[in-house]
Amino acid sequence: MSLPADWEAVCARRKRVQAESIPTEWIIPTPPEDQLNVMNVPRQCGLLTDLEMDITETVDVQTILDKLCRAEWSSVQVTTAFYKRAIVAQQLTNCLTEIFVERALERAKELDEHLSRTGTVVGPLHGLPISLKDQFTMKGLETIMGYAKWIGNHADSDCVLVEILYECGAVPFVRTNVPQTLMWGETMNHVFGRTLNPYNIAFTPGGSSGGEGALIAMKGSCLGVGTDIGGSLRIPSAFCGLYTLRPSYMRLPYCGAMNALEGQESISSVLGPMSNSLSGIKVFTKAILDAKPWLRDPLVLRKGWSETEYALVRHGNGDQLCFAIMWDNGRCVVKPHPPLHRAMELTQRALEAAGHKVINWEPHRHLEIYKNAETIFAADGGHDYRQQCEGVEPLIQTMSPSTDSHENALDEPLVKGLVGEPYHRTAYELWELHAEKRALRKSHLDHWRATVNRTGTGRPVDAIISPAVAYTAVPHGMNTDSFYTTLCNALDYACSVFPVTFVDPKLDDPHPPHRFYNHEDEHIYKLYNSDLFPGCPVALQLIGGTQEEEAVIRMTEIVAEALAQLN
Amino acid sequence: MSLPADWEAVCARRKRVQAESIPTEWIIPTPPEDQLNVMNVPRQCGLLTDLEMDITETVDVQTILDKLCRAEWSSVQVTTAFYKRAIVAQQLTNCLTEIFVERALERAKELDEHLSRTGTVVGPLHGLPISLKDQFTMKGLETIMGYAKWIGNHADSDCVLVEILYECGAVPFVRTNVPQTLMWGETMNHVFGRTLNPYNIAFTPGGSSGGEGALIAMKGSCLGVGTDIGGSLRIPSAFCGLYTLRPSYMRLPYCGAMNALEGQESISSVLGPMSNSLSGIKVFTKAILDAKPWLRDPLVLRKGWSETEYALVRHGNGDQLCFAIMWDNGRCVVKPHPPLHRAMELTQRALEAAGHKVINWEPHRHLEIYKNAETIFAADGGHDYRQQCEGVEPLIQTMSPSTDSHENALDEPLVKGLVGEPYHRTAYELWELHAEKRALRKSHLDHWRATVNRTGTGRPVDAIISPAVAYTAVPHGMNTDSFYTTLCNALDYACSVFPVTFVDPKLDDPHPPHRFYNHEDEHIYKLYNSDLFPGCPVALQLIGGTQEEEAVIRMTEIVAEALAQLN
Repeated sequence: MSLPADWEAVCARRKRVQAESIPTEWIIPTPPEDQLNVMNVPRQCGLLTDLEMDITETVDVQTILDKLCRAEWSSVQVTTAFYKRAIVAQQLTNCLTEIFVERALERAKELDEHLSRTGTVVGPLHGLPISLKDQFTMKGLETIMGYAKWIGNHADSDCVLVEILYECGAVPFVRTNVPQTLMWGETMNHVFGRTLNPYNIAFTPGGSSGGEGALIAMKGSCLGVGTDIGGSLRIPSAFCGLYTLRPSYMRLPYCGAMNALEGQESISSVLGPMSNSLSGIKVFTKAILDAKPWLRDPLVLRKGWSETEYALVRHGNGDQLCFAIMWDNGRCVVKPHPPLHRAMELTQRALEAAGHKVINWEPHRHLEIYKNAETIFAADGGHDYRQQCEGVEPLIQTMSPSTDSHENALDEPLVKGLVGEPYHRTAYELWELHAEKRALRKSHLDHWRATVNRTGTGRPVDAIISPAVAYTAVPHGMNTDSFYTTLCNALDYACSVFPVTFVDPKLDDPHPPHRFYNHEDEHIYKLYNSDLFPGCPVALQLIGGTQEEEAVIRMTEIVAEALAQLN
Repeated sequence: MSLPADWEAVCARRKRVQAESIPTEWIIPTPPEDQLNVMNVPRQCGLLTDLEMDITETVDVQTILDKLCRAEWSSVQVTTAFYKRAIVAQQLTNCLTEIFVERALERAKELDEHLSRTGTVVGPLHGLPISLKDQFTMKGLETIMGYAKWIGNHADSDCVLVEILYECGAVPFVRTNVPQTLMWGETMNHVFGRTLNPYNIAFTPGGSSGGEGALIAMKGSCLGVGTDIGGSLRIPSAFCGLYTLRPSYMRLPYCGAMNALEGQESISSVLGPMSNSLSGIKVFTKAILDAKPWLRDPLVLRKGWSETEYALVRHGNGDQLCFAIMWDNGRCVVKPHPPLHRAMELTQRALEAAGHKVINWEPHRHLEIYKNAETIFAADGGHDYRQQCEGVEPLIQTMSPSTDSHENALDEPLVKGLVGEPYHRTAYELWELHAEKRALRKSHLDHWRATVNRTGTGRPVDAIISPAVAYTAVPHGMNTDSFYTTLCNALDYACSVFPVTFVDPKLDDPHPPHRFYNHEDEHIYKLYNSDLFPGCPVALQLIGGTQEEEAVIRMTEIVAEALAQLN
């Protein structure tokens, strides 16, 4: 189908509207072209006052909330600080979509007035600016979600999450970029363009919540909300060195948010927080669950925040946990890069030093699970994507920028071979995939349960630790693997991502070549050399049981504390 | 496709095997042909001893458990008593499939020995015989589920429910009949034949858990387990005067049980208890949830039995509840028969006398919800059923016995017009139905929530009371409507059925004709006359929120106590 001649102009116009929504006094000079790492620009550019630097460098979200609560910092101050820094991040990484400074500051002002008038906060997130992925509809604002067709798509109402955030006293203040279709682990679309990784702008921040990833890494937001169907919270969190929580299906309220593959419920997309601190992850999750989201979102489980589960009562009170490390995913998909391996060693050492046990995870049917999940995602043969693009803009076929394709670019990701040529499946074929998935989940659960014989704690393994992605951030267009993340979506295990260290060429020598599991594994192996990745954040994934969000947060705190002790 | 010439012989052979599994000394004389109500035969046939009559007439399941626990009754005594009565029920209503007396009694003996040896019970269901619908696989036994093709389908292992029942100390003792495909509100298949309603053997006991319905009504089991995807627990419970609970999706463990439309997860089938007492409903639900079923069934929610929810803490501690009665389903589907109307009036009076409030339920998009659900069930255009039958046996097209078709038989149920000619939908079309369903659920939830303005309790309506079916049990082949039940499956509201009264020709005069909503409504209206239904049980449905099983049980107890006070 031919495209309208002016589709690029339409996108460019929308992008100009975005640029014009930036206060001119917040425009900073462009850094030199050869400066790949822009993490220090916010500090150096001179736009932020000392107080604004103090505020935005405060990583612990609970500390910010405490200061807001005591009126030590006003919401206007905090929102202005993060907004300025978000705009700096935007100029360096192109992480935002909707920018609405006045609206956010007005809201902040109302909250300040409320506190000063009544002496009480509106809710547990009083005064806190929160960034939102461009799926969470806000009344009067556009949700474009990477589709040219959706330009002008102003929402009539807030989605349930935004309703609750308002009632909790939060200040939604920016919306963040996504890839077209949402089904990429990078972030680029025709309307708002490509988002860059602030640790190396030649690299992707990951995706699909990549706008959040870049923004929060630059401390342009202390708490953001993304979504995840195959790794979209965890890939950007890993590539940008953040914490995140991928909750199980239907724990947090998605109702009213826009989505790709709308109505695909076999492996549901979920929303979750991203933050530079675990305190941000906990504060958000608890606030939303305490608001009884099931009263407004019919799909949300009637299961509030549980202090008992957070206290790890079902995990021996957390006194001596047993973790299983997935050093490799079963000689079947891809072997992680050396920095990931080192991160797992560090974590093992830290946990053992803290008195916990660490055993090896025995992989179990991981390739079958991956194949089942990817086949489900492709069950409509791409009908949904085509429908959004056809006659409007081209469907994006690669995240690789034509101008800088990397010598090691992978032509055909493993998934394509697994799933085969896409075709539109019938309802019955989808049911068959569900039956297969259920059997795989049962098999994996029994496998996990059987670890009770190996832990010595009287319990099965408390959590699995694995990479989130087999590598750290990679050059644009090079992120092909989503095995480690998709595993958890398919099995619906609650899981987190936590940063461990940074790539250090002195410590992270290439491994000798192994017998490659498949061509993607070979490609990923060859991609690694000590020169390409220095300074990139290295993160891992902690995998708990289904609907064990509270326990996953607490166990991630335990891991993070152990790692901090090690340093 | 042509059928093998001997398919009827194959079915007949299996039926003979069943007949031969009945101990000959338990065969009773056939009652006179014109005796339609066989409820009194167990008492009159002389097969049961006085003790066996005492045991089987003990309706309260907790009382039986207490006596088992104190060794006042042995499990062998209790199991023998219910087994004999079940065999009587089988001879009168044809309610069973697998019969395995020795195996059950051996199990009972082991439990008795355990108690006598250790002085402790194995679990909360120690010694209790429990009947299971012919979907719940038990190692070594056949699960035929109404399909000739499944004859000889011996299970390698127990399903998760049966595993848990064993660990709880229960004695699974019979399996019960279902309709071919499971998707009928009656109970007939080519292998085991038709199940009859013991209140009137010319009537259907309902379905698809109709074997359980007839068996429990005859007190051949004090507690049984059925399943429900559109009313299959509630229709037989209503037609046979029992209590049941239809829990929300994924609360109780279905894993390993056989099912129709395997992998259909849009509106999931659920399992639930059926019993002559609410004590049976509560005991079962609590025992299964206390066993942490999510540790073995990956689809089960991590949400144990909650005493807080049972105590109605979120419903003002149950002190003054507000119920909404669905007198009619919105002038859009069918008007209930006079006995149902009287049952609702009785319930209103009883609740008001007990100090609770009763308002009218305002129907909300009920026909749209019904249409969406029925379209989802038909999404494969019948592919699943055909696959089970093709080349083996005919697909059953009607539950009407050719020999006694009723003058008022409905040629075309409303559903057919709603759904249109069945065709096999694509995965994307199924996703569209999910998106529509989600919007309908949200709309209905908001509608319910808005009742806070009408209740005067400061809360929205605590529960809705409606018919389960628009009529009481009807002649075989005449059960066409599943609107009131399917509504709850589509919206995933936890709900119960409770018996209220019996049809009384003196009290239940026909209503004057109303303006018929549709041809099915007209048919149902014309079906009623005071002579056809006397003595049939009249039951209602209590509808709570999603995953409010504990609250639904407690509120049903409150209603039942109020009704008992009224008499």
